[in-house]
Amino acid sequence: MEKKFVAINYISCEPHYRQRFEELFATRAHAIDRMPGFIDMQVLKPNGEGEYLIVSHWSSEEAFKSWTGSPEFLEGHKRGFDDIKKAKAEGTKPPMTSSFKTYTEISN
Amino acid sequence: MEKKFVAINYISCEPHYRQRFEELFATRAHAIDRMPGFIDMQVLKPNGEGEYLIVSHWSSEEAFKSWTGSPEFLEGHKRGFDDIKKAKAEGTKPPMTSSFKTYTEISN
Repeated sequence: MEKKFVAINYISCEPHYRQRFEELFATRAHAIDRMPGFIDMQVLKPNGEGEYLIVSHWSSEEAFKSWTGSPEFLEGHKRGFDDIKKAKAEGTKPPMTSSFKTYTEISN
Repeated sequence: MEKKFVAINYISCEPHYRQRFEELFATRAHAIDRMPGFIDMQVLKPNGEGEYLIVSHWSSEEAFKSWTGSPEFLEGHKRGFDDIKKAKAEGTKPPMTSSFKTYTEISN
């Protein structure tokens, strides 16, 4: 099979922010869907405690990197970024933190 | 959309075992494919250091639990389990450790 590039954004949400976070994804801008090389994505909610996983599949690493540096990336994350900025301005803890890890799909 | 049940097995491999581990998946028994409620799975290799992720999609939590208690589960993991037993018998560190986390796919 063709090897695919997979990015997972691991997101840790404050308890009070989980509902808002899920609403942001349920009503997302779909800006990422327009990116060349984007295949699909899934939003995984932990059963119980733990991090949310945003899993996105790409035709190549270059396609993924183009997205993270694109206007679509900022558009797609605008409301979340605004929530973080607001917390910072108010001197409170950010409602979520996130970090990307990337993978190669090697078999299925 | 229908909500789907997702299980991720996070696997930490000793460096010397990574090649063997990948071979086990490339030549896997496909025992899981016969389980009722199994949808599909992906093997994700970390780009750089980190854990391998075995992502499996199921029609329900019950389907996943039936699998972990089934003869197919033992059949599908036989060679890996044997490697771990062998290391234990020799008094050496297990070549891999793993833990499951489960998720609900909430949007895409």
